[in-house]
Amino acid sequence: MLTRIDHIGIACFDLDKTVEFYRATYGFEVFHTEVNEEQGVREAMLKINETSDGGASYLQLLEPTREDSTVAKWLAKNGEGVHHIAFGTADVDGDAEAIRGKGVRVLYDQPRTGSMGSRITFLHPKDCHGVLTELVTSNPEH
Amino acid sequence: MLTRIDHIGIACFDLDKTVEFYRATYGFEVFHTEVNEEQGVREAMLKINETSDGGASYLQLLEPTREDSTVAKWLAKNGEGVHHIAFGTADVDGDAEAIRGKGVRVLYDQPRTGSMGSRITFLHPKDCHGVLTELVTSNPEH
Repeated sequence: MLTRIDHIGIACFDLDKTVEFYRATYGFEVFHTEVNEEQGVREAMLKINETSDGGASYLQLLEPTREDSTVAKWLAKNGEGVHHIAFGTADVDGDAEAIRGKGVRVLYDQPRTGSMGSRITFLHPKDCHGVLTELVTSNPEH
Repeated sequence: MLTRIDHIGIACFDLDKTVEFYRATYGFEVFHTEVNEEQGVREAMLKINETSDGGASYLQLLEPTREDSTVAKWLAKNGEGVHHIAFGTADVDGDAEAIRGKGVRVLYDQPRTGSMGSRITFLHPKDCHGVLTELVTSNPEH
């Protein structure tokens, strides 16, 4: 069961400048940064609020680390903006399977590693009214 | 001060079909519906979680009611997808003024009426790294 908006993924050309925009404009601070080599992104997580399921909602700012990454291609086509949205669940495996069974394309056979040691998968935007949609189970150590 | 992700605004061609997608796929139920004549949209709010500031996070599904509405033009250009993101604040007037003072264009001189009797304004996406950004003060009667 999806119990929260886990994050909004925002693609940008320059992570440092975009982090500085969110800090200077709204006072949002960086909670975590990492490089995900598999996804080809460098990212910053800004925690915005905690949520009623015991988790939290973040902005995830994403800068591509290589030209052949999904986010680099997306930026070349669309420019900066909202790249995906993510819902949090305690059971990404079970929810992904249930959603696959409803005819929505799940992009990974098995969940992969996302931000802060989470386990994630994505749903095809063409099956989700144009919205690239991620499912996330947080790592409780974070 | 912005204290939560208030909602993610998603533009769609057919509100009823999109509501049904979110219900059938994820179990999300409609919390509220309304027509905003000024914005030229028919909308459904799906509550996803409550937030640590005493508010909540929603998906806001938006269908244009007329061809000259902002959302209709956006859909014609982009197709379905994430149209804007919104942050909640106890003081939309004060925050909008402070943000205007930092050189970010605020689209309304004064906040206008948004979903569920809230007061809202928007920030220019070109000043926000491509993200159309809304600020919301909820109506406590909702």
